[in-house]
Amino acid sequence: MPAWRFDAALLPSGWATDVTVEVDRGRIAAVAVASARPAERISGVALPGMVNAHSHAFQRVFAGLAERRAAADDSFWTWRDAMYRAAAQLTPESVHAIAAQLYGEMLASGYTSVVEFHYVHHRPDGIVYAPVSAMADAIVAAARDAGIGLTLLPVLYQHSGFGGRVPTEGQKRFLNSVDALLALAADIVGRAPDVRVGLAFHSLRAVAPAALVEALTGVDASLPDAPIHIHIAEQPGEVADCLAWSGSRPVEWLLDNAAVDARWCLVHATHVTPEETVRLAKSGAVVALCPSTEGNLGDGLFPLRDFAGAGGRIAIGSDSHVTVDPFEELRWLDYGQRLRTHRRATGATEGDPHPGAALWRASLDGGAQAAARPVGRIEVGASADLLVVDPDHPALAVAPADALLDTLVFHAGARAALVRVMAGGNWVAAHGRHLDAERFADRFRTVAGPLRQVLAAI
Amino acid sequence: MPAWRFDAALLPSGWATDVTVEVDRGRIAAVAVASARPAERISGVALPGMVNAHSHAFQRVFAGLAERRAAADDSFWTWRDAMYRAAAQLTPESVHAIAAQLYGEMLASGYTSVVEFHYVHHRPDGIVYAPVSAMADAIVAAARDAGIGLTLLPVLYQHSGFGGRVPTEGQKRFLNSVDALLALAADIVGRAPDVRVGLAFHSLRAVAPAALVEALTGVDASLPDAPIHIHIAEQPGEVADCLAWSGSRPVEWLLDNAAVDARWCLVHATHVTPEETVRLAKSGAVVALCPSTEGNLGDGLFPLRDFAGAGGRIAIGSDSHVTVDPFEELRWLDYGQRLRTHRRATGATEGDPHPGAALWRASLDGGAQAAARPVGRIEVGASADLLVVDPDHPALAVAPADALLDTLVFHAGARAALVRVMAGGNWVAAHGRHLDAERFADRFRTVAGPLRQVLAAI
Repeated sequence: MPAWRFDAALLPSGWATDVTVEVDRGRIAAVAVASARPAERISGVALPGMVNAHSHAFQRVFAGLAERRAAADDSFWTWRDAMYRAAAQLTPESVHAIAAQLYGEMLASGYTSVVEFHYVHHRPDGIVYAPVSAMADAIVAAARDAGIGLTLLPVLYQHSGFGGRVPTEGQKRFLNSVDALLALAADIVGRAPDVRVGLAFHSLRAVAPAALVEALTGVDASLPDAPIHIHIAEQPGEVADCLAWSGSRPVEWLLDNAAVDARWCLVHATHVTPEETVRLAKSGAVVALCPSTEGNLGDGLFPLRDFAGAGGRIAIGSDSHVTVDPFEELRWLDYGQRLRTHRRATGATEGDPHPGAALWRASLDGGAQAAARPVGRIEVGASADLLVVDPDHPALAVAPADALLDTLVFHAGARAALVRVMAGGNWVAAHGRHLDAERFADRFRTVAGPLRQVLAAI
Repeated sequence: MPAWRFDAALLPSGWATDVTVEVDRGRIAAVAVASARPAERISGVALPGMVNAHSHAFQRVFAGLAERRAAADDSFWTWRDAMYRAAAQLTPESVHAIAAQLYGEMLASGYTSVVEFHYVHHRPDGIVYAPVSAMADAIVAAARDAGIGLTLLPVLYQHSGFGGRVPTEGQKRFLNSVDALLALAADIVGRAPDVRVGLAFHSLRAVAPAALVEALTGVDASLPDAPIHIHIAEQPGEVADCLAWSGSRPVEWLLDNAAVDARWCLVHATHVTPEETVRLAKSGAVVALCPSTEGNLGDGLFPLRDFAGAGGRIAIGSDSHVTVDPFEELRWLDYGQRLRTHRRATGATEGDPHPGAALWRASLDGGAQAAARPVGRIEVGASADLLVVDPDHPALAVAPADALLDTLVFHAGARAALVRVMAGGNWVAAHGRHLDAERFADRFRTVAGPLRQVLAAI
């Protein structure tokens, strides 16, 4: 079995020096301190790779392109129209190329696993591909190409608004019956043992109560312990529509009408009352925060301090991929809280002497829960997902050893100190580039280039 | 005279293709479209380099290190105590090494000029160095080493709080009489024709009204047209103290008591009333915003939309250098406004179809004004400060040509498309690294390494 020996590593018990990690079929088989076992020496400090708990891979193709403004009243909703026009162009081939490019970028930046919230299922006219799973297969193939750990969430999408509103033309690609969606999930489970399969509800806008119950019953029967994700309370307009429809706010409605527990991941949950915040924390569910996308879309700031104070669990996601960098996400997650409170010690970092490390670890634990995979820890049985950091890089050279993660998170230049990345036991990236970056880029340019004309009109 | 031919360039009149730029002694001598003149062909698109309008170079040494928390009530003020402990360790030699490392990082990230707000003048006990200018000379030498354009602002610092409070022990290094400060400025002017010299007031906390008037009179006599900078209204506590002292808020007091005009740059100006916002915009002064530092310190969000709407001018600065990346600063400057307003079209970008380009250009124009140097434009007479971007990089490959700057600002991965940097007519950086990065890093490690013990106690 291959083994690597690091100068130091962040173990579940804390920092340790001279750490040897043995790997068997992608999993960590042994972790030893000051071991005499033969191992390849790796200069640097090993950290657990980060989990990207929320991704729509196809949106990478127009990252940064939905900024051109047709209207002064540009908002989340005008952004969504532009996103639909991009989505209309996708094929299984282009999704494969776009996702492989993206997943390579994720690995190079420190994300070693990803949860894909997958809702572009069919042809633009709504007709299914042959096979039906063509789009899901493209995601799986891209994750294997890049070597990133994948949790795939086929998404239930049925309506264009609360109260079962008829879907729009642009949403035809997203639609499935509950049975068809469960069949797709079961198909992937059967064919891809390396992929963790769960299920997602796009939102309470897109899924009516009866379908929610039907799908949850089906999950209990055919996908026990599967992770369940949902977009929720991202925009004030969504909260207002939900109140008008049901008399309840989105998070309140979900907590009242579904057995929300540790299987669940609520994505965004931006607009919550103090009561919703505490109830959500006590449910055991994870909240997936996507600071760069939420900033880009002007969503608002989640009350992290109150949520974490009530024991709530968080994960981070790159969502629309305007930023693919876990350090930037965590930095600005905390800055958003600081700007709101005029304090420096905030949120997940309240009272912790190492706020960067606290954010990293909280996101690893919550991310592992959201991904429902054994990730985020350098321990026996976990996926061998490691980041190697050079502590002599000028961005870290003055950092005391116990402040390494604080500096990595809060000194932006320190991202360049990430020198090697291992995912699933394979070395996949070095110095900010995936080892296959050229191949991914060539294919990405080939399929994405023709989209330039379409995107120019966005 | 050397000349370079680019595939395209951003000129004052807009985007142009096939642009030849001729350089003479660091300045642009000619700009021509589709020229027949012999020139070295450079593959890529040329943009004007960004101005860093607010820097405290020495703070680079503890970027990311003031995050470890001794106290749950950690704030701007506890951060300042930590910063003073770091400042106490500085020597001219270490400042030279730290500033050269930092300026190299600035150039590699796209800042081609810097405004240094320089207040660590003397030995820790307050005794002057021989020569008195030793610290300023170290900054000048570092800027020359790295090849960055420098505006040096010796800072007047006399008190520890409003009402002429006696300075603290940690502030002894910062203190000067008005005469001594003006003499220092005149000395640099005489010896360093490549450096633009201005003057700064640390803050209204640190400079009493009589000294402010005396210094401004001195500037009029000996440094006409010099840029004048001041930190102002960064923290709510500072606003409260100013009100208690004078009955006026800081910006209000300054506008009432000094002839604030286009020579002035107000740094931060975070906490302003709507009336102050409009008065400040109409004064012609620049406001230097430092989004990453302001986020790190929990300062708050400047009312950019109202300020820009009233014709106000902005620049950006990396200040404490937790982030050295103009794209990240502009991205999060806009995201902060979006998060506050739940709109995507905000601030300097209101009504502009190209918000990334609008932010870049506004910061170039305001930065040039704050630096009081001919920078920020690819035109005859301007400093030859150019960024070369690869439009075929996977982060930009799908961007329509007119959306290049929008994508550079709002797609974080696009920073990797910055392939070459010219400053003052010299190629100084490529692919995210200064050409002398190894030399700077070696010297930085040598002087900064011993600070690790001191910083470990911060």
